[in-house]
Amino acid sequence: MKTQHELGTRERIVRTTAQLMQRQGYEATGLKQISQEARATLGSVYHFFPGGKRELAVEAVRHGAAEFAEFLRVAFEQEDDPAAAMIACTRTLAKDLRESGWLDGCPVTTTALESTGRAPEIQQAAEEAYESWRALVREKLARAGFAEDVARELAHTVINLLEGAELSAQVSQSETPLEIAGRHLAVLIDSHRGGATRPASG
Amino acid sequence: MKTQHELGTRERIVRTTAQLMQRQGYEATGLKQISQEARATLGSVYHFFPGGKRELAVEAVRHGAAEFAEFLRVAFEQEDDPAAAMIACTRTLAKDLRESGWLDGCPVTTTALESTGRAPEIQQAAEEAYESWRALVREKLARAGFAEDVARELAHTVINLLEGAELSAQVSQSETPLEIAGRHLAVLIDSHRGGATRPASG
Repeated sequence: MKTQHELGTRERIVRTTAQLMQRQGYEATGLKQISQEARATLGSVYHFFPGGKRELAVEAVRHGAAEFAEFLRVAFEQEDDPAAAMIACTRTLAKDLRESGWLDGCPVTTTALESTGRAPEIQQAAEEAYESWRALVREKLARAGFAEDVARELAHTVINLLEGAELSAQVSQSETPLEIAGRHLAVLIDSHRGGATRPASG
Repeated sequence: MKTQHELGTRERIVRTTAQLMQRQGYEATGLKQISQEARATLGSVYHFFPGGKRELAVEAVRHGAAEFAEFLRVAFEQEDDPAAAMIACTRTLAKDLRESGWLDGCPVTTTALESTGRAPEIQQAAEEAYESWRALVREKLARAGFAEDVARELAHTVINLLEGAELSAQVSQSETPLEIAGRHLAVLIDSHRGGATRPASG
């Protein structure tokens, strides 16, 4: 019973931290706000995370990484063809972003950028996040017969363009950057099919 | 004499703020640190920027926007062909980033992300920054004969992929994401030349 309760509190603290850092970043998020919104005492926050905010940020990045991985998994399943899957994925991403009032962007980026060169453990967690997302793109492309080296490079660009387009969509409060990204990723993937099927236009 | 001196101080404050926010973001940058590193009194910071940190952040974003625009202008001039220019651009960006110890990434992104939904004037300045960079890409493509609508969409993806790849390069402390981005942008641009010249492989 105790353990079950403790697990619940710990998870609530991590989820709350992840959401706060997604919306306002690492620096603006304080332990006091985390404890209040997670309905946990400051004492229990320190009990579970003796390393304080930095340790919590690593857990929040991991939580956000798993959440976005699940999003990508579901989004990619919408279409068998990887090029069509990119268009479907960016469309869902744009819709979700709009529905959050343009607030819930990438759960990792802001915290990763704020900690560049200052918190290696957070940077490491962010690098693992990106790599786990790239792995999902590689798998999707491999199932469609893409060579391993081609898939590895495309995975970088798919994730990096999703990141950049999502950021631009947030700043301009518009779905356009993500819509364009989806179409361009489809063109790029099609142009790497070894000269086979190509879209009619770009 | 007085005016000249005041201009110098104001500029020093803006430049210092821009560099601090580029490296550590908006939230972590305090007026005290700005005044110390700019060798200006806190009083003179408030004299020039009565709106405080928010007003300074807008100026810092504009300063960073102009600086990156100048970078793009010079980088794009390295090659007449826009596809080749993208490869040259990402190569220079990666080199500069490495030489800064992976610290000096996009001068706008971190501050823009931190202020999403909370500081509309900073968000507006960031949107203007992205638009000014996209305009440079559109010009480069227009000079090479690309149609206006094609150039407009490509400009979004060029800037967004540069953003995302730069972020990924910072997190992984590696030039690879930017190198791959350059090659993929070249493929994408080539595939929009109206079905004419295409690269031999991707």
